Amino acid sequence: MNTVLDPVLVAMPDVQSSADTRHIAIQRVGVRGVRHPLLVATAAQPQATIAQWEMTVALPAEEKGTHMSRFIALLEARRAQALSPAGLAQMATDMLDQLQADAGDLSARFPYFLEKSAPVTEVRSLMDYQVCWTIRTRRQRASQFSLEVQVPVTSLCPCSKAISEYGAHNQRSHVTVRLECPAAQAPALDTLIPAIEAQASCQLWGLLKRADEKYVTEHAYENPKFVEDLVRDVAVMLQQQPGVQWFEVEAENFESIHNHSAYAVVRSA
Amino acid sequence: MNTVLDPVLVAMPDVQSSADTRHIAIQRVGVRGVRHPLLVATAAQPQATIAQWEMTVALPAEEKGTHMSRFIALLEARRAQALSPAGLAQMATDMLDQLQADAGDLSARFPYFLEKSAPVTEVRSLMDYQVCWTIRTRRQRASQFSLEVQVPVTSLCPCSKAISEYGAHNQRSHVTVRLECPAAQAPALDTLIPAIEAQASCQLWGLLKRADEKYVTEHAYENPKFVEDLVRDVAVMLQQQPGVQWFEVEAENFESIHNHSAYAVVRSA
Amino acid sequence: MNTVLDPVLVAMPDVQSSADTRHIAIQRVGVRGVRHPLLVATAAQPQATIAQWEMTVALPAEEKGTHMSRFIALLEARRAQALSPAGLAQMATDMLDQLQADAGDLSARFPYFLEKSAPVTEVRSLMDYQVCWTIRTRRQRASQFSLEVQVPVTSLCPCSKAISEYGAHNQRSHVTVRLECPAAQAPALDTLIPAIEAQASCQLWGLLKRADEKYVTEHAYENPKFVEDLVRDVAVMLQQQPGVQWFEVEAENFESIHNHSAYAVVRSA
Amino acid sequence: MNTVLDPVLVAMPDVQSSADTRHIAIQRVGVRGVRHPLLVATAAQPQATIAQWEMTVALPAEEKGTHMSRFIALLEARRAQALSPAGLAQMATDMLDQLQADAGDLSARFPYFLEKSAPVTEVRSLMDYQVCWTIRTRRQRASQFSLEVQVPVTSLCPCSKAISEYGAHNQRSHVTVRLECPAAQAPALDTLIPAIEAQASCQLWGLLKRADEKYVTEHAYENPKFVEDLVRDVAVMLQQQPGVQWFEVEAENFESIHNHSAYAVVRSA
Repeated sequence: MNTVLDPVLVAMPDVQSSADTRHIAIQRVGVRGVRHPLLVATAAQPQATIAQWEMTVALPAEEKGTHMSRFIALLEARRAQALSPAGLAQMATDMLDQLQADAGDLSARFPYFLEKSAPVTEVRSLMDYQVCWTIRTRRQRASQFSLEVQVPVTSLCPCSKAISEYGAHNQRSHVTVRLECPAAQAPALDTLIPAIEAQASCQLWGLLKRADEKYVTEHAYENPKFVEDLVRDVAVMLQQQPGVQWFEVEAENFESIHNHSAYAVVRSA
Repeated sequence: MNTVLDPVLVAMPDVQSSADTRHIAIQRVGVRGVRHPLLVATAAQPQATIAQWEMTVALPAEEKGTHMSRFIALLEARRAQALSPAGLAQMATDMLDQLQADAGDLSARFPYFLEKSAPVTEVRSLMDYQVCWTIRTRRQRASQFSLEVQVPVTSLCPCSKAISEYGAHNQRSHVTVRLECPAAQAPALDTLIPAIEAQASCQLWGLLKRADEKYVTEHAYENPKFVEDLVRDVAVMLQQQPGVQWFEVEAENFESIHNHSAYAVVRSA
Repeated sequence: MNTVLDPVLVAMPDVQSSADTRHIAIQRVGVRGVRHPLLVATAAQPQATIAQWEMTVALPAEEKGTHMSRFIALLEARRAQALSPAGLAQMATDMLDQLQADAGDLSARFPYFLEKSAPVTEVRSLMDYQVCWTIRTRRQRASQFSLEVQVPVTSLCPCSKAISEYGAHNQRSHVTVRLECPAAQAPALDTLIPAIEAQASCQLWGLLKRADEKYVTEHAYENPKFVEDLVRDVAVMLQQQPGVQWFEVEAENFESIHNHSAYAVVRSA
Repeated sequence: MNTVLDPVLVAMPDVQSSADTRHIAIQRVGVRGVRHPLLVATAAQPQATIAQWEMTVALPAEEKGTHMSRFIALLEARRAQALSPAGLAQMATDMLDQLQADAGDLSARFPYFLEKSAPVTEVRSLMDYQVCWTIRTRRQRASQFSLEVQVPVTSLCPCSKAISEYGAHNQRSHVTVRLECPAAQAPALDTLIPAIEAQASCQLWGLLKRADEKYVTEHAYENPKFVEDLVRDVAVMLQQQPGVQWFEVEAENFESIHNHSAYAVVRSA
C-alpha cells in the first residue's frame, strides 16, 4: 500500500504527529509483550524459537507520539532471517531510521536449547535455558549489547553436609548472568552456558539413566556450594572471558528445606 | 441509593434484562480475579489474608445477561466478617437470592499461615500455604464444598539414595490436596496441613537454626519418598479422615537433577 | 549403550520395580513442565514452536514406581518429526508400550501463529494463540483427543454503549475453547481460530495501519457483545462443527473499567 | 534456647564463618520470596496485607557466607508491628547490626487497598493496588527509600477516536510509578494513588452501577490519552510532589486491538 497517495489516509488526522507542549522528553516508548518466532543464528544451523519482544525509541519533548505500527512492521520484515547479536544491532539501527528517532532499545527474550550427553551413559537430550538479548542504540555512538542467560543447576548446601551424619539438602537453583560486550564479540551461548554450569554443585540434564543419576548425586555431594559460592565462582569465570565489559551474576536457590529462596548477586567492579 | 425510584436509572436501558433467543443456557457467568481482603475464621482468632475471588451463577437460556455489580456488592457487604466454610455456604445461598439464580459457585483462593516450632531449637516462625475454598450451590439441594490446599515439602529420591555411595538428590515439592465434604464438617487447616506434611520426606519451616538443619537433613535422608510414595501416603491418611466424600492428591517434585518436574495424581475410588 | 549387559547397572538396585503394599493405584504419574521444541504439522509446511509437555501413565496398586526417563526418551526419539493430533495419538500408544502401562495421557501446550491480513490495508502480520493438545489413551479402547485454544479478541460492552451519549468501554478478552473429537477429525487450527474470532466484537491483529484502526474501532462499536454473548455465539458455531463430541467455551473480559474480569462458561449438553 | 552453651551446636562446624580466598565481595546476599503478613501503618488504622520480602546484605570478600536464618528471625520479631517507610528504615538498620554487615537492602511487595466511592451513585468498594517499598542502607550514611506503586487505569486512544465515526478503542493500563525520597517524607499512598489515577482517561472502581458506568464511559471518551500522554501527565504531577528526589513513570496499555502492549517510560532529569 502506498500510504503517501492514499486519499483516505491523507484525509485522516495524524494525532501522533501533532506538537506537544508539556516539555517532557520520553526516554522509551514502543511495544511490549510481542510474541514472535525467532531464528537464532548459531555456529551450526539456526535454532527456531519463540521470542517475547520489547521495542522502544526515545521521543523528543516536542513530539506527541511515536508510530507504533512501524515496530511491528520492522519485526515482520525480518521474520525469516536468522539473527545474531550483530544482526540485532543492525536491526536497531534500522529501527532508528524507520522511527526517525535518535535512540532506541530492542530486546528479545526466548527459550534456547542445548543438546547434552548424559555424564555416564552419554544418552543425548535437550536442556532448555532462558536467554535475553538487548541492544541499546544511540545515533553516532556504538550500540551497547547485553546478554542475559538463566541457567538452572543443582546446588548442595555445604553447611547441611558438614553438620549432618548423612545426606545434605540440595535443590534446583537458577544462575542468571547478565553481561555487556560489543555485539560482534558476544560469547556463544554454546560455550558460555557450559562454563556457567561447571560452577554449580552439578549441572542438569533432560534425560538421565540410573548410572547417570548415581553420578549426578555423588558429584553434587562432592561439590557443595552455598549461593555465595555459586555467584563467586561464576564471577571468577566471567572475569576471564574476553570482551566482557561488565557483568552481574545472580543465583537463586529454591531451598528444599524452606518455602523461600536463598539469593545472591555479585557485579563486576 | 434507592435504585427503584432513581429516575436516571429508570430511564436507562437495561440491556442485560432483555430476552435471548439463542437457546443456550450458560452454566457459569460472573466475576473473576477479584482481589479482596478475607478474614479466615479459625479455632483461635481470625486470620487476615488477601483472597482472589471467583463468583458465578447459572443463567437460563432465555436471559441475556447477569448483573455483574451484584457480585461485588455481595463481597463488600461481608468485608469485615470472619468467614468459615459454613459461612461461605451461607454467602453462596445469599448470592442465589440476590442474583435471582438457581445455581452458583463461589471460590476464594488465599495464602494461609501456620506458626510452627523448629524441630530441635523450637524457635517459632510462620509457614505459608495456598488454600482454595469452593462452594457449589443449587436451589433445593445441599451445597457442595471443596477444599484445596497446596503444601510445600521436601522429597528425597529413594532411587538416588539406593544407588549412590553418599548423598541423595532432594528438592522442594508441592503436595496439593483437593477434597469434598459437607461445609460444616470441613477439616481444620491447622490439623489437615500437618497431617499432609507428615507424609513427606520432611516438612519445611521458615526459620531453622543449625541444629534444626542437621535434623531436617538427616530426617529427609531417613525417609526417602518417590512422587508416587507421596501421593499414596497422603491418600492413605485421607482415607481415614472423617467426613471426606471425595479426594484427589497431586504431587509435583521440582527435581533438583532435571529442569522439569516428576508428577503424580491419585483420586479416591 | 546396551543396558542389559552393563554390569554396573545390573548391580544397581531398581527401587521403582519393587512391590508396593499400600493397595493404592495411581491414576497418573510421569513428568510435567518439560519444555521441548515441537514441529506442528499443518496443511502448509510444519510450524516450529516450543511446547510444555506433560506425560503420565497409570500405575497399578502393586507397582512401586514408574520409569521417568522413558518419557523423555520418547520425546527425544520424535524430536524432528512434524506432529498432528493423529501423530500424538500414535505417540501415546507407543508410550503405553514403552512404559508397560494400560493407560496414559500426553499433553503439549504451545504458542501457535497465524498470518493475517489487516482488514483494510491488507498488510500482513502474525497473530499468536495458545494451544493445548491432549490425548488420553486406554489399551483396547479408542483414545480420546481434546483440543484447547485460547483466542484473544476485543469485546465491547452493549450496556455501556446503550446508556452512554458517546463511546463504549471495550477491552481485550480471552476466548478459550476446549473440545473433544477423534484425533483424526480434529478441526484445523487455521479454520477453527478464525471461526472463533468471527464471534467477537472484533478480532485482533499484530499490525494495523490507521485505515485499519478506523475499521476495527467502528466494527467493534457496531458489534457490542457481553461476555455471555461471546460464549453463546461461539457455542452456536461449535454446535455446527462436524466431529465435535463435546465442547466448553470460556470467555474472560479484562474489563477496562474494573480491576477484575467478567467471566462466562458454557458447555455442550 | 541458649545457643552459646549448647554442646551440640558448639561442636558443629560453622562453614559460613570460614574465610574465603576468591577476593570477590558480594553486593547482595540473603533471602527472597519470603511470604509473610504485613501490617501497613496508615493515617487511619493499620491495613493487614501479605507481603513478599527480599532481604539482603553486602558480604566482604574475605567472608564465606552470611547467616540466612537471621533475616527470618528479624521478620518474625516484628510480626505484629504496624510498619511505615520510616519503620522499614529502622528495621534495615537493625538488620545491619544483626547480620554484622555494612550495607543492606530490604524490600516488601504487597497488595494495598483503597476504599472508593463510585462517581455518581457513590456506592463504596475497595480497589487493589500493588505496592513495593525498598530501603537501601549503608552504615554512616542516610538510607535511601524507594516506593513503587502500580495503578490500574483506563486509557482511551486519541488516534482511534479522531479517525473513527463513532467509538474509540480503550483498555486497562498499568501505570507504575517508582520514586525516591527520604523515608520520613514518603507520600501517603492514600493521596499519591488518586493523584496518579487523575491523569488517566478514567480511573477504575470495584463496584459500578449503571449510572456510574455511563459516567466512566463518557469520561474516558472525553479524555483520550496515548501511552505517551499517560507517562507525561503523571510526570508533571510528580514534578510538583514535595520531597521526591527521583522518579520513573512507566505505562503499559494492554491494547484491546492487538495482542501486545503499548509501553512508555519517562524518568526525572
